[in-house]
Amino acid sequence: MADEPRTHSTLQRSDAVRHHDFTTTSATGPGQLIGLDIADMDFPSPPVALHAVHTRAERNDLRYTLASERLRGRITDWYRDRHKWRIQERDLLLLPFGVKAALRMALETCADLSRPVIVCIPVYGGILKVARAAGASVLEVPLEYDAELRHTLDPRRLADELRRSGAGTLVLCSPHNPVGRVWRPDELTALAAAAAAAETLVISDEVHSDLAHPGQHHHPWGAIAGDNRNWIVLHSVGKTFNVSGLQNSFAVVGTPGHRKAMRGGLSSWGYYEGSFFGDAVAEEVLTPDGARWLDARVRHLAEVGSWIRRTLADLPVALPSSSPEAGFLLWIDARTLRVAGRPVELAERIRLRTGVRMLDGTRFGAPTGFLRLNYATDPVLLRTAVRRLADLGQEEIRDVQR
Amino acid sequence: MADEPRTHSTLQRSDAVRHHDFTTTSATGPGQLIGLDIADMDFPSPPVALHAVHTRAERNDLRYTLASERLRGRITDWYRDRHKWRIQERDLLLLPFGVKAALRMALETCADLSRPVIVCIPVYGGILKVARAAGASVLEVPLEYDAELRHTLDPRRLADELRRSGAGTLVLCSPHNPVGRVWRPDELTALAAAAAAAETLVISDEVHSDLAHPGQHHHPWGAIAGDNRNWIVLHSVGKTFNVSGLQNSFAVVGTPGHRKAMRGGLSSWGYYEGSFFGDAVAEEVLTPDGARWLDARVRHLAEVGSWIRRTLADLPVALPSSSPEAGFLLWIDARTLRVAGRPVELAERIRLRTGVRMLDGTRFGAPTGFLRLNYATDPVLLRTAVRRLADLGQEEIRDVQR
Repeated sequence: MADEPRTHSTLQRSDAVRHHDFTTTSATGPGQLIGLDIADMDFPSPPVALHAVHTRAERNDLRYTLASERLRGRITDWYRDRHKWRIQERDLLLLPFGVKAALRMALETCADLSRPVIVCIPVYGGILKVARAAGASVLEVPLEYDAELRHTLDPRRLADELRRSGAGTLVLCSPHNPVGRVWRPDELTALAAAAAAAETLVISDEVHSDLAHPGQHHHPWGAIAGDNRNWIVLHSVGKTFNVSGLQNSFAVVGTPGHRKAMRGGLSSWGYYEGSFFGDAVAEEVLTPDGARWLDARVRHLAEVGSWIRRTLADLPVALPSSSPEAGFLLWIDARTLRVAGRPVELAERIRLRTGVRMLDGTRFGAPTGFLRLNYATDPVLLRTAVRRLADLGQEEIRDVQR
Repeated sequence: MADEPRTHSTLQRSDAVRHHDFTTTSATGPGQLIGLDIADMDFPSPPVALHAVHTRAERNDLRYTLASERLRGRITDWYRDRHKWRIQERDLLLLPFGVKAALRMALETCADLSRPVIVCIPVYGGILKVARAAGASVLEVPLEYDAELRHTLDPRRLADELRRSGAGTLVLCSPHNPVGRVWRPDELTALAAAAAAAETLVISDEVHSDLAHPGQHHHPWGAIAGDNRNWIVLHSVGKTFNVSGLQNSFAVVGTPGHRKAMRGGLSSWGYYEGSFFGDAVAEEVLTPDGARWLDARVRHLAEVGSWIRRTLADLPVALPSSSPEAGFLLWIDARTLRVAGRPVELAERIRLRTGVRMLDGTRFGAPTGFLRLNYATDPVLLRTAVRRLADLGQEEIRDVQR
């Protein structure tokens, strides 16, 4: 076999094919690109989200608007009902951009960037990117993991790192993208004690929190941290209700000082609180009706997650992966594939060979050989993707035996 | 008369009343607050804008999206047809935020902020605010103006200031908010020569450009600057089509280096090009149909602008104002009013006395005694506002005679 990767002759490279179009019946021809990379779901949004957009548009008024006060109430109710967390409306900032920009704004306005920022890796690359862009010295602390690819926070190690480095800020991803963990209360409580002792601001990205699988319980950082309110929780309806196109988010901010600083940051960029259609949609989905829609989806995601994990583990060249406890992402150890370890990134080599697009682990601060796969798609597509990965493994076995 | 301002007994202070509700018949009781401050129009958006929102929502897909390539074509066609300016699609960046954030992003990523930033005053306060927030040393250069309140750029003075200060950047507002000037080609050409000689980046905020009144012709900075492409033009459909709630904008960027820098800035905040509903609306309004809707509106605005200017000049206590050549804003010299010059800002004292809300000139970098009035509203409301201002003047005359 030549060193040059073979390309699928009919492979579509266009970025326009980034989503499976769920509005048509799936046709998965041999050359069709299967995008399992972008982190949203190949399902329609809840009908109520669309209805909210229409209703808002029907007012025939697209002028400057104020943030939705009603939405603040919806969010506090949502936290109370879904996560047993009591927050005040005054703790909330309704942000006109997605969670990555929210994280950057929080870092720019609330963090002491003369001290390091700790981030556990692997982690969603956007976190590393905006933290570095904010000028932070980012200290990457690897999560522990076992043979089953179950990742854990080691609060003792993190406490040591916090002390040793004098980190001013810890950016947490909870539940975790990409390893799918819903952190246990004991893990979080120990970490909270360490953060309090080190006077570290904790910024917790909780965009997957509403997608905790059946039997899993997400604990918002602010509910764990007790009297120490040196935290900012970032969340959004984007992942929860598959409306990431709206690019709005919100922050629950522990202290009045940080709220004021973030408001100042918004204003200094000419932003106001609120998002024109984003607020309207969020109001209508963060409701008991929205929760019912969501619960049915999450049950489905949990089943698909278990299935894909088992299936990948049983391939001729086994691909071990994390056991997702929330969301729709799988963290795969693909170091057994021979395409790994080449100069071009693994995900790209696999895409060229199979037409299956995943994200490369190196984008998450991991060593080469890992992948992130989004399994929230059409089962037919998913089975096709698995078959192609199986074929790739078989080809490699044949190549070795030849 | 006591020093304490009298308040309208039934004055509504709530910010919720920031707009006149054009969907109902106007009822202007004596205590009703009349908001002539926020810079959008009390008219519905073009029907095609609403239609675009509905159509986009009907796809039942609110996931991550790509920027609209079709919109790039629409924008280049728009410039060609409306402003006789030929640009390339590759010069464009479709921005997911309003023009203020766009200005800040341009300053952060393209300007040499170790050198001063020149801004002519008075000017929309948001420009001064984001420039200072970006860390710029802002050098305010007053525009010249005559007894008719006609403001002019003095290119010779600006050339001197550019040379003397070593300014790295000039932020231009064209057409000008608040003084309503559509800068003449000779003013702009002389300024362009000065900017080229001083190697100054020109960032031109042109959000009112499509609202040039009949007989006026806007000249985009990039069309004036010739071979020197050290410029960034910022624009948006927000003012043009009264859809500022969507908070999207675009930049025409003169050089590949600045385009790359701005793209890097977007990415470093987790932004992508494009705006979910903003792109959809912009696509449908930047069309010959949209232009027809717009032209009818602009003719109306020009008539109202002339009327309100004459009317204010003829009041018992005359209020001279700028003669608007674009848009819907009037810059008023209210120094003859005795409420001027007190410690509380003039606009606030007038609001307390009359229930007419305007913006205070000091927010535009002007000395006390000036106001900005938005006349794009219901004629009944506007007449009521004028009557209240007339009554205020009469009361003051009586107070003096007493």
